[in-house]
Amino acid sequence: MVETIQWIDDSVVLIDQTRLPLEEKYIACHSYLEVAAAIREMVIRGAPAIGVAAAMGVALGVLRANEENLDAQVNTICDTLAKTRPTAVNLFWAIERMRRLYQRLRGKPIAEIRKWMIEEARLVREEDIAICRAIGHNGAALVPDHSTVLTHCNAGALATAGYGTALGVIRAAVEAGKQVSVFADETRPFLQGARLTVWELQQDGIPTTLITDNMAGHFLKSGRIACVLVGADRIAANGDVANKVGTYTVAVLAKENAVPFFVAAPISTLDLTLASGERIPIEQRAAAEVTHVFGRAVAPAGTTVENPAFDVTPAQYVTAIITEKGVAHPPYEESLRLLAGSRL
Amino acid sequence: MVETIQWIDDSVVLIDQTRLPLEEKYIACHSYLEVAAAIREMVIRGAPAIGVAAAMGVALGVLRANEENLDAQVNTICDTLAKTRPTAVNLFWAIERMRRLYQRLRGKPIAEIRKWMIEEARLVREEDIAICRAIGHNGAALVPDHSTVLTHCNAGALATAGYGTALGVIRAAVEAGKQVSVFADETRPFLQGARLTVWELQQDGIPTTLITDNMAGHFLKSGRIACVLVGADRIAANGDVANKVGTYTVAVLAKENAVPFFVAAPISTLDLTLASGERIPIEQRAAAEVTHVFGRAVAPAGTTVENPAFDVTPAQYVTAIITEKGVAHPPYEESLRLLAGSRL
Repeated sequence: MVETIQWIDDSVVLIDQTRLPLEEKYIACHSYLEVAAAIREMVIRGAPAIGVAAAMGVALGVLRANEENLDAQVNTICDTLAKTRPTAVNLFWAIERMRRLYQRLRGKPIAEIRKWMIEEARLVREEDIAICRAIGHNGAALVPDHSTVLTHCNAGALATAGYGTALGVIRAAVEAGKQVSVFADETRPFLQGARLTVWELQQDGIPTTLITDNMAGHFLKSGRIACVLVGADRIAANGDVANKVGTYTVAVLAKENAVPFFVAAPISTLDLTLASGERIPIEQRAAAEVTHVFGRAVAPAGTTVENPAFDVTPAQYVTAIITEKGVAHPPYEESLRLLAGSRL
Repeated sequence: MVETIQWIDDSVVLIDQTRLPLEEKYIACHSYLEVAAAIREMVIRGAPAIGVAAAMGVALGVLRANEENLDAQVNTICDTLAKTRPTAVNLFWAIERMRRLYQRLRGKPIAEIRKWMIEEARLVREEDIAICRAIGHNGAALVPDHSTVLTHCNAGALATAGYGTALGVIRAAVEAGKQVSVFADETRPFLQGARLTVWELQQDGIPTTLITDNMAGHFLKSGRIACVLVGADRIAANGDVANKVGTYTVAVLAKENAVPFFVAAPISTLDLTLASGERIPIEQRAAAEVTHVFGRAVAPAGTTVENPAFDVTPAQYVTAIITEKGVAHPPYEESLRLLAGSRL
């Protein structure tokens, strides 16, 4: 069992997702700045996992902070972590959760503050695994027996504290006795599908076929794909979904070929402050991610690049959104608000 | 000016497209078997360029053949070249053209047969360049001034004997004084867009932005793309288009966003013997093209892969087909038949 992120001996231990699957290497972060760098450089990625990393980053920051001016230091820690990546809302959700706890603890002895902040970060991690299992449980019925599911990017154990969102649904369907195989988009430029999804499904013995992103349309048209399952980085109140770039393309092709398109994500991925996906900030990443693969140039020197890390899939293409609290169907303004307000 | 394929000193000289843009290396084929290997290994690729290579391969085979049993040798040469790649119909068109010429020359002195076969192969090359210029001329009016065109794969000078089909239309629009910039899909797994399209447009000073294939949908939705221009490997009588895998995806996304989708190809790409695209054979290529980039693994060992090199875009997504004889509009059964039968 792969461990995405753990709190071990006053440090945050991450599997280095930039090196998988060629190397299975764990790194330990001893300061919040190291955690921030790990998020920025995608050593850890995936919206729920980023949330856990941010929570642990705040705890680590408080653990290493001086007793003097603690308020100011907590602000700096939170602000620094909040600036690592703009799109996944789980990052801000986790930081806000830690900040609110700190507000409640202010004035207590620093040892106590540290203890509770670390406890909370570990709780965020444990809850995330439990949430993924609930998402899997809620979504498993949507995956037909003897079917092939298409997924994009990695919304698996590596994108969460464990078990995964989209891949959690697949795992739960398999655990329920269904025969499910997976088509995995390789997901350029960072190759999360080829490097991470294939790798973690191999470990579970779930049959997986790797394709390049531009083959998804061909296979959706072929009738071989029963449904699409993806994760999300931010979901607006109307059900518009920001997720890894290419998700919109898969959603349009799924609809064109009458294949159901499911999004699996925790409630913490909802951003009900945004009426639609149009206002979700889309991160632009470095050109070298596109022009180079593992450091090797695949384009001429001086190539101009666009590298949006995410795109927005309008709600009209989304068949259902699977959360730990239940499955939301259109119209999403209503179903998501009800789920968000309900108790687990 | 890049030279894709030339007949020089009784050999066929090709720029090695597997090494571009990192190395600009020409290789000389001295036997038809070397030409066949170059087509199979994609040292030369692109439907029109494959046609020229096949014609030159036949000529080279006849040049090196013995005078005894020439008929049998010509059959072997043609059959071997015909087995290199299954989808691009230009290959079969060019071989058939050379075979028919040989039938007419049978019984003449071998020196004369060789001379005329070589002449014909050089003519196929020269005609291809002229055809591309005519395609460009016919298509240029479809490209708006001050616009950005999306292209997939490489349908440029490198996919033809020169000038290009889809990129020929862009070149002709630029030569007509229009300001045109290009978005180039990188086109996994072989990266013809990143390696070849960006490289050859850079040489012409046409502003080009490289994106990964899965970003095309995002940019088609953004309103920044005025039209899509792609080549073709085979076009059925009803206008269904086989082209590099991913073309279908782009076509669906273009239609969904009301962006015109144009196919540029010579008449030799038409296969009017096929009623629809369903019966076009789709080449499956080696898994290593997907699991490795320039020899470097991007997926775990033992990964299962699908690697169809082409897909079929149903005619309903194709706004127009630009040929050297004119522009065909739907219904294509009628317009393509008329164009195919008309004189240049």
